[in-house]
Amino acid sequence: MAEKPKAVVLLSGGMDSCVTAAIANQTHRLALLHASYGQRTERRERRSFDAIGDFYGVRDRDRLVVRFDAFTQIGGSALTEERISVPESGEALSPHAGIPITYVPFRNAHFLSAAVSWAEVIGANAIYIGAVAEDSSGYPDCRPEYYRAFEALIREGTRPETRIKIVTPVIAMRKSEIVRRGVDLGAPLHLTWSCYQFDDEACGTCDSCRLRLRAFAEAGVRDPIAYRAQVAR
Amino acid sequence: MAEKPKAVVLLSGGMDSCVTAAIANQTHRLALLHASYGQRTERRERRSFDAIGDFYGVRDRDRLVVRFDAFTQIGGSALTEERISVPESGEALSPHAGIPITYVPFRNAHFLSAAVSWAEVIGANAIYIGAVAEDSSGYPDCRPEYYRAFEALIREGTRPETRIKIVTPVIAMRKSEIVRRGVDLGAPLHLTWSCYQFDDEACGTCDSCRLRLRAFAEAGVRDPIAYRAQVAR
Repeated sequence: MAEKPKAVVLLSGGMDSCVTAAIANQTHRLALLHASYGQRTERRERRSFDAIGDFYGVRDRDRLVVRFDAFTQIGGSALTEERISVPESGEALSPHAGIPITYVPFRNAHFLSAAVSWAEVIGANAIYIGAVAEDSSGYPDCRPEYYRAFEALIREGTRPETRIKIVTPVIAMRKSEIVRRGVDLGAPLHLTWSCYQFDDEACGTCDSCRLRLRAFAEAGVRDPIAYRAQVAR
Repeated sequence: MAEKPKAVVLLSGGMDSCVTAAIANQTHRLALLHASYGQRTERRERRSFDAIGDFYGVRDRDRLVVRFDAFTQIGGSALTEERISVPESGEALSPHAGIPITYVPFRNAHFLSAAVSWAEVIGANAIYIGAVAEDSSGYPDCRPEYYRAFEALIREGTRPETRIKIVTPVIAMRKSEIVRRGVDLGAPLHLTWSCYQFDDEACGTCDSCRLRLRAFAEAGVRDPIAYRAQVAR
């Protein structure tokens, strides 16, 4: 039996990327890429990244943590600028809220560029990213059109023989569907982290926690991670 | 009179990017972005970047040096892997040489992504890059089609109100035309650096030096920088 092809999976350590890895794992050997860009909860995310890599038995040479200095240097986002506070107003919950303050300009292009460079070197034929269009964001780079444009860029910007597709398996799912798919696939949701604010127990009040808790509630599944606040679940 | 709009110029410190900055300077205020990615001659390039910024009177807040860790981590290129030697065979001089060993996979996408993030934050309406299609490379990301694909990506991946074009003013020029344009515009060619190998005096023998020397010779202009070897000029 021929060996499965490799896929680079962008794995933040959050729920969406964890379930994306579980989906990629069905058809590909996993090569896990984590982005370190000065986000507040980077150490906690990194722990989740390592734990999920261990869970799937991914070798060290197939894990890559890339540091991106551009964001902290350029600023302009609540996730990297200490002076801007993380919103707790629930603005990310509204579908008409526009572009949230946690937006890092053109962020995913940096991560995808690293994924393409790595994929070309290791011979991976796909890049998996857990972007979610609905139910979450207003980020312009979480829409399907964006990923089609990036695939066109890959075709123009790599060796003629290179074939790399971008796979966004959860992009059209509601967060509650992502939870259910994760449970179905035996994804290690207990190892994931979503909170923007703390790194020991999740705050339960930031927008990311609220979206996560709502997703588990809608899915009828108990969120297995620890929360600092008393939260309904 | 209205103030000129800002443009982000990718400035390596080489001849092509210096002349590109001179062209951008005619219509825009310059914001200079330099990429540090573990290239052998980074310190020397950085000196050229600083000197060209001083020459054009660019304020510190309009200069940005971004470190890119991905390339050294991913490897696969003579410019960043110490074990791979820089070719002196003249392979880059042949139009049929294919993709040279100095190719860093998908490199320009990393630099352009940083340029877009910065441009969106500072309100620049253009990104200038000194890519040259003919006469130099075989790099897939130095062709006009690549930049059109990147502009499409910018439209999909930034705020709806953001308008950023990519300008490649020297892409269709021969290297000798770039030299002549630089001389016409009073560009500080004496401050530029091209050698892949050394950082005190240029080697005169690596492919980058050979292309540069040939360009000056064809332009009928004496190259003002110092060379280690006795070279015809």
